[in-house]
Amino acid sequence: MATTLTRSLGFRATHRYWVPEWSAEQNRSRFGSAIEAHPHDYRCAVTVSGPFDPETDMIVELPALDGILYEEVVQRFQGKQLDRDTPEFAAAGMQPSCEALARYLFRRIAARLPAGVALERVRVEEDPSLAAECTKE
Amino acid sequence: MATTLTRSLGFRATHRYWVPEWSAEQNRSRFGSAIEAHPHDYRCAVTVSGPFDPETDMIVELPALDGILYEEVVQRFQGKQLDRDTPEFAAAGMQPSCEALARYLFRRIAARLPAGVALERVRVEEDPSLAAECTKE
Amino acid sequence: MATTLTRSLGFRATHRYWVPEWSAEQNRSRFGSAIEAHPHDYRCAVTVSGPFDPETDMIVELPALDGILYEEVVQRFQGKQLDRDTPEFAAAGMQPSCEALARYLFRRIAARLPAGVALERVRVEEDPSLAAECTKE
Repeated sequence: MATTLTRSLGFRATHRYWVPEWSAEQNRSRFGSAIEAHPHDYRCAVTVSGPFDPETDMIVELPALDGILYEEVVQRFQGKQLDRDTPEFAAAGMQPSCEALARYLFRRIAARLPAGVALERVRVEEDPSLAAECTKE
Repeated sequence: MATTLTRSLGFRATHRYWVPEWSAEQNRSRFGSAIEAHPHDYRCAVTVSGPFDPETDMIVELPALDGILYEEVVQRFQGKQLDRDTPEFAAAGMQPSCEALARYLFRRIAARLPAGVALERVRVEEDPSLAAECTKE
Repeated sequence: MATTLTRSLGFRATHRYWVPEWSAEQNRSRFGSAIEAHPHDYRCAVTVSGPFDPETDMIVELPALDGILYEEVVQRFQGKQLDRDTPEFAAAGMQPSCEALARYLFRRIAARLPAGVALERVRVEEDPSLAAECTKE
């Protein structure tokens, strides 16, 4: 048996899609109304694995995980326009898709977990109809 | 890391279970009140994988996927009595279980995805207490 | 393709965390307000696999599965204070974490499934922000 723990949290942010190398018509044709900034109530679910602590019967110290998630997810994205206000997306010209957000957060969070705790999966849901998952291979 | 995208959509349909080779008593004993047609607000979640498009930072062109899902899921099942109105279940005598729906939709959708996009999983939920998943092996 | 079926059910229970070998200060420092008993509306999702029954197009006889889940989950935990009223946690000094509950239920349910049906996963969610999964390896 393998055991994982999933912590979920929300943040509210806006985004729009716009490829600068494309014409306005091309952008509209590909992204529709999403070329205008619009809000989402994002949900982010972070799944970790690790050995059971024999004293607490838990696989991660939750306050430590919550501290990392607060910094990497909430402080970074809450209330922002992702394609404009967050350097990682704005400067790199990365489109703020669910897929790109999940991949970005996977790398950030994986780099910060305590020793012995592994990041298994990051799921980013922009609304109940669309979500992306980045999974450890 | 592997990245997937999941699109979810709903449809409303009715179904009942009835094995023609069984007596009424056998059917009632096995399926209970589900031998009578009853409605469900189904949710269907379709998970795909593929390489990141370097221009859009997405792994699938969403309008194309939505078009396929509209035809294969909504047009096929919305408002129907699955065991009576959809030839795939009626003619084949296939019981309209979550499992059978997930497997059927997996085959239909997998056959239509654009080149480079793979179908990873189809989940069919008939209500919050019961769901089936068909996964690529 | 592999097909699974997931049955979800809820139970209401209270729990608290307290390691007897630790001082009150240590317990408070690690668990915060969770050292006091508090309720959760737990959700438990049990995922099984098995061959399609050619007559019913289902992979498990649902009434049989529901009977097992009623005994192992609802009867065992509903309305209890997990760390005090359930011998498995109280006597063994096991902390009633999501992880421990998922692992415990995995073992109990796996041992009772009908021949040919395999337990793939047990998920225990204590609230929308925290869940644990125990998966067959």
